[in-house]
Amino acid sequence: MTDAAGPPASSWVPGADASPYSLANLPYGVYSRAGGPARCGVRIGDQVLDLAATLHDEVFAAPALNGFLARGRAAWADTRDRLRRLLAADVPEAAANRAAVQPHLVPLEDVRLHLPVEVGDYVDFYCSLEHATNVGRIFRPDQDPLPPNWRHLPVGYHGRAGTVVVSGTPVRRPLGQRAPEPGGDGSPVFGPSTRLDIEAELGFVVGTPTRLGEPAGDFADHVFGVTLLNDWSARDVQAFEYVPLGPFLGKSFATSVSPWITPLAALAAARVPGRAQDPAPPGYLARREPWGLDIAITVELNGEPVSHPPFREMYWTPDQMLAHLTVNGASLRTGDLYASGTVSGAAREQRGSLIELTWNGAEPVRTAAGERAFLADGDTVTISATAPGPGGARIALGEVTGTIQPARPVPAS
Amino acid sequence: MTDAAGPPASSWVPGADASPYSLANLPYGVYSRAGGPARCGVRIGDQVLDLAATLHDEVFAAPALNGFLARGRAAWADTRDRLRRLLAADVPEAAANRAAVQPHLVPLEDVRLHLPVEVGDYVDFYCSLEHATNVGRIFRPDQDPLPPNWRHLPVGYHGRAGTVVVSGTPVRRPLGQRAPEPGGDGSPVFGPSTRLDIEAELGFVVGTPTRLGEPAGDFADHVFGVTLLNDWSARDVQAFEYVPLGPFLGKSFATSVSPWITPLAALAAARVPGRAQDPAPPGYLARREPWGLDIAITVELNGEPVSHPPFREMYWTPDQMLAHLTVNGASLRTGDLYASGTVSGAAREQRGSLIELTWNGAEPVRTAAGERAFLADGDTVTISATAPGPGGARIALGEVTGTIQPARPVPAS
Repeated sequence: MTDAAGPPASSWVPGADASPYSLANLPYGVYSRAGGPARCGVRIGDQVLDLAATLHDEVFAAPALNGFLARGRAAWADTRDRLRRLLAADVPEAAANRAAVQPHLVPLEDVRLHLPVEVGDYVDFYCSLEHATNVGRIFRPDQDPLPPNWRHLPVGYHGRAGTVVVSGTPVRRPLGQRAPEPGGDGSPVFGPSTRLDIEAELGFVVGTPTRLGEPAGDFADHVFGVTLLNDWSARDVQAFEYVPLGPFLGKSFATSVSPWITPLAALAAARVPGRAQDPAPPGYLARREPWGLDIAITVELNGEPVSHPPFREMYWTPDQMLAHLTVNGASLRTGDLYASGTVSGAAREQRGSLIELTWNGAEPVRTAAGERAFLADGDTVTISATAPGPGGARIALGEVTGTIQPARPVPAS
Repeated sequence: MTDAAGPPASSWVPGADASPYSLANLPYGVYSRAGGPARCGVRIGDQVLDLAATLHDEVFAAPALNGFLARGRAAWADTRDRLRRLLAADVPEAAANRAAVQPHLVPLEDVRLHLPVEVGDYVDFYCSLEHATNVGRIFRPDQDPLPPNWRHLPVGYHGRAGTVVVSGTPVRRPLGQRAPEPGGDGSPVFGPSTRLDIEAELGFVVGTPTRLGEPAGDFADHVFGVTLLNDWSARDVQAFEYVPLGPFLGKSFATSVSPWITPLAALAAARVPGRAQDPAPPGYLARREPWGLDIAITVELNGEPVSHPPFREMYWTPDQMLAHLTVNGASLRTGDLYASGTVSGAAREQRGSLIELTWNGAEPVRTAAGERAFLADGDTVTISATAPGPGGARIALGEVTGTIQPARPVPAS
């Protein structure tokens, strides 16, 4: 029951075949019912399957997927095969499977979803040529928009793992210092961020760890799956703080991820060769397999689509990000999360951040809720995505959403 | 039995009173005996006291201090008071205490020391005016050495928590890309770092967490103690990669910390007002108590002292670092570690990194092992420190040491 090409397999779960969470998808997450403990589950259709009860495996009776992820690629494949068979309509034992498994399905509307992994380190890359070019033009108008290193390595930095939150978590507008304002007294201004932004990204979740001093092996040996990620960014705070050591408080207040991790195995039909690279990168960054991903992202602001970033256009592919991250001997831990950086395409309507969409506020986005240069209190941003599945159907990545809460009061000085 | 001023209290542990690990110190760590599990201990003299057995408290029968640290400031004080009384020579019940406690003392030479905490997030600041000025001059000779933000906030960034290692862990020279070399083909060069450096720092370990969206309260309510830290740095890798998102692979291969965490309570006699600041920082960074620390650091290269960085000269104090880290609502977790950045004083022999000591290699350091611009394979770097204790005695912070191993072979491209 492997992820073969051809027509999609059918499930006995009502509604699953017509859902983007069909048997071809089966993303993993962590859920709880009212008053109950958090446990690992798999989504099919609009239901969650309890894994510990279904598979009689205590690794899933945990509030995070880390234990399962640590088992490695062969175990991931075996579990996926078992689940696909148990949920399939077209196997001889389907009736018996249905009788055994159905009691462990819970409607999504009855559960709360949690952060699916305990995050080790969180790294954010900067892998879209269009995004890096746009931001370079806005932040450093007097220089070449791409720094000299950009085409030679996937630029990245560490973010704050402890503030990675699950979709739905409210995001409080951060306080911080921004550069002195024209007409002011020359001092930086402290207060609520006035340029609160989003970044639509894909995140990659590490399962198999490495030893300190050794580089990672094949991408699919280490990376379990993919999540959608919103790297909330306070552009005014970031612009003042980031020279010379990079983004810090402008990003560390919250990073939202989807509650569902789509396993790489579900993305077989989405794999494409990466974008051509010039110059050719050094050997350790050479692509060995196609790990570009044809994932179509949509960004909605208060329910209105404002952007459609195409992940397939990324300059650096996720296998290259992993190779770079570990080439210096930095070790991986189960639960490490690394993100692609903002996904932006060449067209305006493909830009994955407001700073690009509005060109630093100069060209506001018009929505039913009014014009937006950056986010207003109460705004809700939802990032969703789909990818090709077998037989022309599409699968969905779990969406990531968040609503902006007003800043806390500025403390008296 | 509080940490009062006045003459130091005496212990019945042989050698403890004359040791920099006297009753006034009592740092916490994690140790194991051959074949045994890792457990929490306190150092006195040249021995480790097993805490779970002594205090009949299972929180210490763990391979990390996190459980104890999460209990908060009142519990830290209570435990310290109990330990000081149990180990004191000048209390009425000293003979009974000695009989009960002595079986739980283990000679240091019989134990292996482990990373004392499970690190949450690791943040590195940049708080020495002299270090920032020196590095600015070296890396950006055509600009003002201090960026415009430097005197308004403690500049910092996130580092890699998963590669924080305990003192004694060998450090393998990293591979990485560095800028194109004069006379080359214009391409970056990939290979072992040729400018491997150290940074002598203090690290601060968070015990009491905060909630997302809320700033931290008082420094001593959240920070449990202090460790010495060596932020190993590949300067060639760093120089090529760090624009615009900051240090990444140039630092992420290893960060070494001492095995002993000195509680803030042991540093009462070391507290000094912080260095004067001009301009006055905004209210959230105002100092409420003196949290400058008169800690004298020594850096040894292959056993020879090469530098004596004075922590008391730091421009930004650790309470200000904590206030900045959380002003945007970023939450703290038990085990979070933040470091001061390289400690450098005004004199050449007070510089806490080789890039400063040798002015980017132009003025090598002369040692018995030969001249050093940067680290050679086989070099051992040891950072130690002392602070004033009660009655004119000094206490020691646990040293942090590491030896450079040759790089792994460059993979064929």
